[in-house]
Amino acid sequence: MGKGTLYIVSAPSGAGKSSLISAMLEKNPVYAMKVSVSHTTRGSRPGEEDGVHYHFVERNEFEALIEQGIFLEHAEVFGNYYGTSRVWIEENLDRGIDVFLDIDWQGARQIREQMPHAKSVFILPPSNGELERRLNVRGQDSSEIIAKRMSEAKSEMSHYDEYDYIIVNDDFDAALMDFRAILRAERLKQDKQTAKYSGMLSALLAE
Amino acid sequence: MGKGTLYIVSAPSGAGKSSLISAMLEKNPVYAMKVSVSHTTRGSRPGEEDGVHYHFVERNEFEALIEQGIFLEHAEVFGNYYGTSRVWIEENLDRGIDVFLDIDWQGARQIREQMPHAKSVFILPPSNGELERRLNVRGQDSSEIIAKRMSEAKSEMSHYDEYDYIIVNDDFDAALMDFRAILRAERLKQDKQTAKYSGMLSALLAE
Repeated sequence: MGKGTLYIVSAPSGAGKSSLISAMLEKNPVYAMKVSVSHTTRGSRPGEEDGVHYHFVERNEFEALIEQGIFLEHAEVFGNYYGTSRVWIEENLDRGIDVFLDIDWQGARQIREQMPHAKSVFILPPSNGELERRLNVRGQDSSEIIAKRMSEAKSEMSHYDEYDYIIVNDDFDAALMDFRAILRAERLKQDKQTAKYSGMLSALLAE
Repeated sequence: MGKGTLYIVSAPSGAGKSSLISAMLEKNPVYAMKVSVSHTTRGSRPGEEDGVHYHFVERNEFEALIEQGIFLEHAEVFGNYYGTSRVWIEENLDRGIDVFLDIDWQGARQIREQMPHAKSVFILPPSNGELERRLNVRGQDSSEIIAKRMSEAKSEMSHYDEYDYIIVNDDFDAALMDFRAILRAERLKQDKQTAKYSGMLSALLAE
């Protein structure tokens, strides 16, 4: 069995990143895949569960984990810490499981340096008008926060060209097929297939 | 519009390479794709058409084309010349068309050197027993020729690890989905998407 692939997935808020990752996990049970669960010091939102959406920890606890070096990357965003456990990811990759890491462009840069075999995917909305519409539909944020997110979105999107793959999420089902094609194709790479089919290859090439 | 991708496709005889390529062209009309038609000096087999399966030419004509430098690669196999026109391939890639190049490992090496952006795919049978069964089912070759092809197959397969992608053709439909996933994923690579969506990207990132 070959190692899993770490997928760095970035997008502006509203591009549909979380929905796409959820749909991948729910509707594609053939491949073993998981989402990396980050540690954070921000408060949980309605519907968020500890250990599922985030590991919610106190600020002093987070700073102790930084000291222990368990994070592959960590960042402070709007006054809250976010971090990614290196140990958890590597254990899953070693078991042949693909891991999705939902992270911004700055975190993505840190991950690429430390995990050079990671593949990165950037998800774009088809237009700024559509992005703003999607942010409004959520209905849980004020117009000031939406304006701030649109500005953040532009900043995030300006880094699209640092990624291996680009998915334009105009039609959700097409974007989901794109994402699946990337995972399927990456599993067909020579090194992955050589590991997966080592027995078959020995038999094929035996004298 | 971005440039097309050149796909180098190799396999031992009987692995299903031609059937897979035909199915790709027939059942996937969304993407523009073509098979490179080689020049050859061998005689045509039943059902083969000039200009469709091969450009059938005389030996002295082929040698004149070599002198003119039109071939990306050429080789002599079992006393017959085979060659690939560089001009035809580059014209199609420039039009955004993906081109399949059905070629052996030696030709593949020559193409990779001259076309470094080409992606290469190797198709393997699930076992030697299945490969031999498929060669027998064709019913158009003698047992001596089949034995020779099995020996040739082993030699060809020993180069599988020089390719970017490996498809194991056990179940034909699964192998076809694999092949499609590779083409779909390659079209999602950042450079291809940047070329395809240049207008959309300018609008997204405009101040």
